[in-house]
Amino acid sequence: MRLRNDKNAKDYLAKQTKYIVLDPSLLKTDLKACFTNPNNPLYVEIGMGKGDFIINNAIKNPNINYLGIEKFQTVIVKAHKKALKHNLDNLMMLAYDANLIDQLLNQASVSKIFLNFSDPWPKNRHTNRRLTHPSFLAKFKYVLKEDGVIEFKTDNEGLFAYTINEVLLNDLQSYEILFLTYNLYQLKDNEQLINNIATEYEKKFVALNTRIKKVIFRYL
Amino acid sequence: MRLRNDKNAKDYLAKQTKYIVLDPSLLKTDLKACFTNPNNPLYVEIGMGKGDFIINNAIKNPNINYLGIEKFQTVIVKAHKKALKHNLDNLMMLAYDANLIDQLLNQASVSKIFLNFSDPWPKNRHTNRRLTHPSFLAKFKYVLKEDGVIEFKTDNEGLFAYTINEVLLNDLQSYEILFLTYNLYQLKDNEQLINNIATEYEKKFVALNTRIKKVIFRYL
Repeated sequence: MRLRNDKNAKDYLAKQTKYIVLDPSLLKTDLKACFTNPNNPLYVEIGMGKGDFIINNAIKNPNINYLGIEKFQTVIVKAHKKALKHNLDNLMMLAYDANLIDQLLNQASVSKIFLNFSDPWPKNRHTNRRLTHPSFLAKFKYVLKEDGVIEFKTDNEGLFAYTINEVLLNDLQSYEILFLTYNLYQLKDNEQLINNIATEYEKKFVALNTRIKKVIFRYL
Repeated sequence: MRLRNDKNAKDYLAKQTKYIVLDPSLLKTDLKACFTNPNNPLYVEIGMGKGDFIINNAIKNPNINYLGIEKFQTVIVKAHKKALKHNLDNLMMLAYDANLIDQLLNQASVSKIFLNFSDPWPKNRHTNRRLTHPSFLAKFKYVLKEDGVIEFKTDNEGLFAYTINEVLLNDLQSYEILFLTYNLYQLKDNEQLINNIATEYEKKFVALNTRIKKVIFRYL
């Protein structure tokens, strides 16, 4: 299911009048066509999946605009149906390839990017498909404001080790780690855990006692 | 001044009836001779310096016992004089070598160890003098309870990089990083900053815009 971009999903999304960005160019040229308060900070989740995380964020923080990007239209349909249970004016979603985010959004327009449980692409020859590969990070930097941050959560040890050891710590001239944990749920009394919003995957992993790793970083 | 263990300091400390552990063996054999509530959690600062950090912690958390260890008696005199301005029953200090902490304290008796702005010992041949060298960490592990943690703060990039890259990340089978930041004061709305208690050194570094690095870790 996850891998099918079936025609039904495409037709469903094309008919929507709420929550779906039908014309991606509006995100660059006319943000008020997407959000009631276009001047509010924009937070973007890349790989939104079934939407629990971004919908719950949008409910909790009405003064922040949320944009969910997801490659697979069938998955967006699920997120969209969940969002329809609420009446939010600060949430939009669209099917898009993260590789093209610098074409989708204006330079220095985003305050925060969320990467949650991204595909680990464990094979070495697929390194450049990982969303924390420097080629992706350069595109994220382009769309982020100067003090914008990336928040990355994962259960995957390999992807996390790659991100921390090979990307961030290898280039502390370019990146600054603001928060890092190898076990988010072990952090007692920490605001990062208290305010944590779990994704669908995350809930499953936590139930299995899998350690959730998290890093928040920004560009210097 | 910092390097002199002068006789006046020794004489001063020997005469004290409050805050000073005159007989170190009591920490192992009779903790109630040191603290009104000997069953409260014990937090230890190694390299207490002039005492601002541990005194302010003791004031803020009356249900935690604090023990400050400092190599230099002249420095302890300064901390002691500050402590005398308060009436605390949860703070003790003594002149001791961190190398011998496993002789000073019982196994699994400590809930938290603080290392604040420890001497960076930048030369390679002095690596084993750094308080985050694995030989020290093994002693700290001995005195820490099973879920006990070490909180380490520093302005020093070299010592922090050594601690993270060469010690902790090199041995994630043994250590778990619960919290890490390369810029504590950049962390907005984070409990770690909101509840932060600054040392004397820290206040100076922050005034100079030096980044304060912090890591909280435990043993697996």
